[in-house]
Amino acid sequence: MVNWTNEEGSRFAPPMLCSGVYAGIFSREKVDATLDIDGVRFGDAIEAIGWRGTNKAGSTKLSAYFELHIEQGPILEAENKTIGIVTGVQGMRWYEATITGREAHSASTPMNCRSDSLVTAARLILAVREIVDAHGPAGLGTIGRLQVRPNSSNVIPGEVFLPVDFRHPQDRILDSMESALQNAVQDLIRSSSTGLRLNRILNCPPAVFDVSCVAAVRTGVEKERLAAREIVSGPGHDAVYVSKVVPTSMIFVPCAGGLSHNEAESITQADATAGAQVLLDAVLALDDRAAM
Amino acid sequence: MVNWTNEEGSRFAPPMLCSGVYAGIFSREKVDATLDIDGVRFGDAIEAIGWRGTNKAGSTKLSAYFELHIEQGPILEAENKTIGIVTGVQGMRWYEATITGREAHSASTPMNCRSDSLVTAARLILAVREIVDAHGPAGLGTIGRLQVRPNSSNVIPGEVFLPVDFRHPQDRILDSMESALQNAVQDLIRSSSTGLRLNRILNCPPAVFDVSCVAAVRTGVEKERLAAREIVSGPGHDAVYVSKVVPTSMIFVPCAGGLSHNEAESITQADATAGAQVLLDAVLALDDRAAM
Repeated sequence: MVNWTNEEGSRFAPPMLCSGVYAGIFSREKVDATLDIDGVRFGDAIEAIGWRGTNKAGSTKLSAYFELHIEQGPILEAENKTIGIVTGVQGMRWYEATITGREAHSASTPMNCRSDSLVTAARLILAVREIVDAHGPAGLGTIGRLQVRPNSSNVIPGEVFLPVDFRHPQDRILDSMESALQNAVQDLIRSSSTGLRLNRILNCPPAVFDVSCVAAVRTGVEKERLAAREIVSGPGHDAVYVSKVVPTSMIFVPCAGGLSHNEAESITQADATAGAQVLLDAVLALDDRAAM
Repeated sequence: MVNWTNEEGSRFAPPMLCSGVYAGIFSREKVDATLDIDGVRFGDAIEAIGWRGTNKAGSTKLSAYFELHIEQGPILEAENKTIGIVTGVQGMRWYEATITGREAHSASTPMNCRSDSLVTAARLILAVREIVDAHGPAGLGTIGRLQVRPNSSNVIPGEVFLPVDFRHPQDRILDSMESALQNAVQDLIRSSSTGLRLNRILNCPPAVFDVSCVAAVRTGVEKERLAAREIVSGPGHDAVYVSKVVPTSMIFVPCAGGLSHNEAESITQADATAGAQVLLDAVLALDDRAAM
């Protein structure tokens, strides 16, 4: 049983930092030096809560890895399926944009003398939406966070920071979305009076899970006679990084209305029980096969 | 000498709350009940720092009121003037917009199922810029602050709050800007999947200062043989509300590059001295006239 630290990446970006260290994607030094929004180092924060632990990362070897999760999407519920047999995870790329304008008084700075970082941010938000719409129904793009400085009603914003989150099941489409984003940034630099820097902070390619692990999940589904379907995960999970070094799969159960990252997120007791049963069945099925 | 509490309105909006109480624009009860971004009441905050005082607001009568200030704009410096003889202040209107979407996971919510409050906010920011550009060089409009909830990289924003700040020297143009803003809001409600509420929280009409007070400032300028010009203030000041009940004028001195509400805001010692001298001269000139 393992509970990986910082799967979400909401406080310390990028996400899946510690499964990333386990899988050799990130160095422990890089992760320790990662800063939150207040400038606190990840390494200091984990020391402060006493959760550093004493085992060297990666020293515990795994023969297989299964992760049970809610779908965080609407498909299983809509199709009346109890279990999603997860065959892989779509790719994700995260970027950070910093837009630099000039702070000045809202009442005395003529419009043509302004360098307003929030206006450029608005243009970037709409450009991201256009890029995603041009990459078909499977492309997703989100700006979930915005920091405005100094964030005062009567001061023209001097700086805006925002992250961009792109997802797609195919790496070559993510390449195309990325190049469209870079073009949009260049256009904004040329057409505005603000500065704009864009950094890619995460490139997590689509993951394809281990066929034996996927088969073990299917064995569990058949044993329990549950309605199921194969599914590709939208969200990233620690399983993505673990799958680089250990045979891995995942099991999904439905969530109400597909809602997740929302206080209304909920699942039924029956679906939770079914998921846990399939998890046990899958571990035993894989163990049986290893023993043969 | 008076130092009015909360001229800026940055923590407690609208601005000029306490000169507003003095002038009978706001009731003390309304001001006490004003909330900051964390839900703290103005009345509680001023009690907590021990600055409530014991005199009833308005109990100190004034025969005239002069306010010395930096211009907070570029005109005096550009024209090599030491003093601005302020004849009035442009009007200002403040609005608060709240946009309501639906929080959901960035990786599993199809684009056509989203209700993204930040995308609507971006459209509103650009609409405000268009409205202002359509109201000539004297119209100003700013969105200086944005609160995104929950403000997390991989969550579609459920709510955005933002204030809109409009300024113009003519009230009828402010009427036209306001009606264009209301139309833009209705368009956004119709064309997006988000909710949008707009409230006007401040309507401060253009102020015209007292002719005797303005003449007293001019007497000081002539006595000191300083380069000066008449000027209408861009920013609002406590003088706007005080002028409703007491003969009032203002004196401006230049600031470097017209910059204000910026850490680089600065003035010269010589200009500060000249401004203070004209303030004294103006008070004495008005006093001489009153004694005649």
